[in-house]
Amino acid sequence: MVNKSKKTLQIQKTYEALFALEDIREIFRQSLPVGFDEKQKEQFSSTIARIKGIISDLENGEGKPACNRVGKLDPRTREEEFINIHPIQAAGRLTPEARKAIISYGDGYSTCDYCRKPFRLDKITRPPIEEFHQDLAKFLNMDQARVVPGARRGFQAVTQSLVEKGDSVIVSSLAHYTEFLAVEVAGGVVREVPLNERNVVTADATAQKIEDVKSETGRLPKLIMIDHFDYQFANEHDVYGIGKVAKDYGIPFLYNGAYTVGVMPVDGGKIGADFIVGSGHKSMASVAPSGVLATTDEWAPKLFRTTQMVGDLTGRKFGVKEVENMGCTLMGATLLSMIASFPRIKERTANWEEEVKKSNYFLNQFLRIQGSKVLSEWPRRHTLSKVDTTGSFDVVAKTHKRRGFFFSDELKDRGIIGEFAGATRTWKLNTYGQSWEQIKYTAASFLDIASKYKLRIN
Amino acid sequence: MVNKSKKTLQIQKTYEALFALEDIREIFRQSLPVGFDEKQKEQFSSTIARIKGIISDLENGEGKPACNRVGKLDPRTREEEFINIHPIQAAGRLTPEARKAIISYGDGYSTCDYCRKPFRLDKITRPPIEEFHQDLAKFLNMDQARVVPGARRGFQAVTQSLVEKGDSVIVSSLAHYTEFLAVEVAGGVVREVPLNERNVVTADATAQKIEDVKSETGRLPKLIMIDHFDYQFANEHDVYGIGKVAKDYGIPFLYNGAYTVGVMPVDGGKIGADFIVGSGHKSMASVAPSGVLATTDEWAPKLFRTTQMVGDLTGRKFGVKEVENMGCTLMGATLLSMIASFPRIKERTANWEEEVKKSNYFLNQFLRIQGSKVLSEWPRRHTLSKVDTTGSFDVVAKTHKRRGFFFSDELKDRGIIGEFAGATRTWKLNTYGQSWEQIKYTAASFLDIASKYKLRIN
Repeated sequence: MVNKSKKTLQIQKTYEALFALEDIREIFRQSLPVGFDEKQKEQFSSTIARIKGIISDLENGEGKPACNRVGKLDPRTREEEFINIHPIQAAGRLTPEARKAIISYGDGYSTCDYCRKPFRLDKITRPPIEEFHQDLAKFLNMDQARVVPGARRGFQAVTQSLVEKGDSVIVSSLAHYTEFLAVEVAGGVVREVPLNERNVVTADATAQKIEDVKSETGRLPKLIMIDHFDYQFANEHDVYGIGKVAKDYGIPFLYNGAYTVGVMPVDGGKIGADFIVGSGHKSMASVAPSGVLATTDEWAPKLFRTTQMVGDLTGRKFGVKEVENMGCTLMGATLLSMIASFPRIKERTANWEEEVKKSNYFLNQFLRIQGSKVLSEWPRRHTLSKVDTTGSFDVVAKTHKRRGFFFSDELKDRGIIGEFAGATRTWKLNTYGQSWEQIKYTAASFLDIASKYKLRIN
Repeated sequence: MVNKSKKTLQIQKTYEALFALEDIREIFRQSLPVGFDEKQKEQFSSTIARIKGIISDLENGEGKPACNRVGKLDPRTREEEFINIHPIQAAGRLTPEARKAIISYGDGYSTCDYCRKPFRLDKITRPPIEEFHQDLAKFLNMDQARVVPGARRGFQAVTQSLVEKGDSVIVSSLAHYTEFLAVEVAGGVVREVPLNERNVVTADATAQKIEDVKSETGRLPKLIMIDHFDYQFANEHDVYGIGKVAKDYGIPFLYNGAYTVGVMPVDGGKIGADFIVGSGHKSMASVAPSGVLATTDEWAPKLFRTTQMVGDLTGRKFGVKEVENMGCTLMGATLLSMIASFPRIKERTANWEEEVKKSNYFLNQFLRIQGSKVLSEWPRRHTLSKVDTTGSFDVVAKTHKRRGFFFSDELKDRGIIGEFAGATRTWKLNTYGQSWEQIKYTAASFLDIASKYKLRIN
């Protein structure tokens, strides 16, 4: 068991100090350019005095606990207090740079201070948003990129540009629900490629499905949309082979990089992708909802087509606004957090193999607990994995008065959080971003819990 | 001229302290649950020491200037250093509560810690997101509400649900470009209602336009979409009358509240709106992109229809996910900022008349500068206004070596920012959220500039 009381208090004091500094900031916001009035001077002095006390408490781990509630919102401190193994949160956790950026750029339209003709987000040069868009395209080895409010809105922009009523779209049998929705909203129909015996989508199976659709409907599918790593097992699917199949059939290929863009190198050219979609809040250490949609110069005119609508009375036209993006997309802290995290994103994708090593290290330890299984492909090529503890922790749960929650309790007592509370059969976890020290600690904690409940460790 | 050096330094020190506390926070994030290692202890001590120095500098307005750059991003301090009259930024500026919420909930999927069946954002009870959705609907006197990534995505959800290829949609001759795009993306055609001599859309003109469309196309328009206050003049359009016309013709009515929801009371029932759309980053003190889409129980099944798509191979269905919202919408700081600002939003809408008074006070002073005009309806019913200074400040600009930028320079020297830099003919400003002291200061500054350049003041 971890004695966390001092640390917990210090984390509370950190938030208390951050919040008190926001109170200071608000005094500036309410003041006149010529300076504070008497009341503001008093507020400033008393808040500074309060901050000094908080910093002293923070330093020494003393003082009374801070509440830090904001209205009905409890402060969220799980990233500070715990090691978080939540399957979808790990790589969306903000970098310190992103946290600083949103402190600075939280306000509504904060990207728009220097918006000039042609009045479009991706053309703004201060802050360097235009440059960031070019960097993003280069990062993915694509020609053009836009930011979008989540990967799902990237899928939607593509399907609505390419798919008409009744058209078929090839997806994986492990496709994410947002891909289903993107096809549905465009009026299309999903056609799933079967998995092989290792739960992987292959190029051959994709080609076969295309043939099936062709013979059934008389027409080729309009789009192939495949996840490089799926959300269920995070197995690697053969996007390189599928890229070739797509080219052979002349069908555009959307590479779903929700679990890759921002954590591992993604080379759109090498993949042969016509579209790449990534998620800011899932894998790019950004505020939600955010994401990236990249394409080639060949497809850009269609995907990023600009408005043709003309006011019947006024003759108004809004020339450069892109229809599928609905004009500007991420006009504030969402985009600024992406930009601020980007240098570190580039660094960390280069270290992907090390992340995979840590994932395998953890699971190798986990597998020592008799009865535990990894349902994802093995060895792991990703940090997200699906495990099965029906033969280990679930055996304990069966007779424990807290049922499956015993496991959550034990993890929490050791400072680990993010498992699906109460689940002890099949569940998912993500080791992304943990240091070696944290990974070893996490693995040891699992073994420790197993050992406490007399599960055999091999 | 304002001597801002001490204040500027103090603002820099405030940011420096906030950023240093984020560095503290990062040490916690990198540490083990059992506590800091030696290196982390050192980092903690040295960062605490640094913070103490910063707080002391902040208190006394001393010390060397702080850079506070985050990578390529300059810190944005215009809300602290200046009175900001930017037309679209005023009501999207975050409340202190929202700023605290995003410090706490900045990380990617930070809303999803306690996501349980049926796995949909608006059903999450911790934080109280479900309750917030109910509050939002009540606040607008509608039956149901969802959050969306910007008002534009609300328009889009409605048009894509109701409008088919070639269908007509009634919009204002002052419709925002995002309304054009929403109609275009759904395959519809905009049909603009003419303005009357006061640049206002009336119920009669709307009815006439419906008749015109009917006689030209043989069919009624599928939707009426009208801004309560438009983005150009912020004139008030007769949404109550238009609501009745819509009912008479049996055409659904989308009330565009981008400039109202969050600043003034909006009663969907009284208006007779079938859909209400509002903007989080424009008028609800929230992080972009965010917004609200509300409707009646009558329209909800169509607008918020859930997915019907079935995997052809796996038989997978994703039952409760809403097609037009693409499942979950604002999974992080965007939504949490809305929730945190909401209590203050409710308060401030009740004080709308006072905001309008301040707007009129300012413009009455502004009009004392000979040659200045207000192009928006008069007296003002909104805080956003379009003015014409061709006969006043532009006369000065004509012979000034800085041209129109002289005016920006003079405003900036007085601690005012947010005008369209260099524009001295027709331009827009927004007085929203300024205290009476700030409004009086702003008005006096305009008169002071006029007087400096020998413009006549009446």
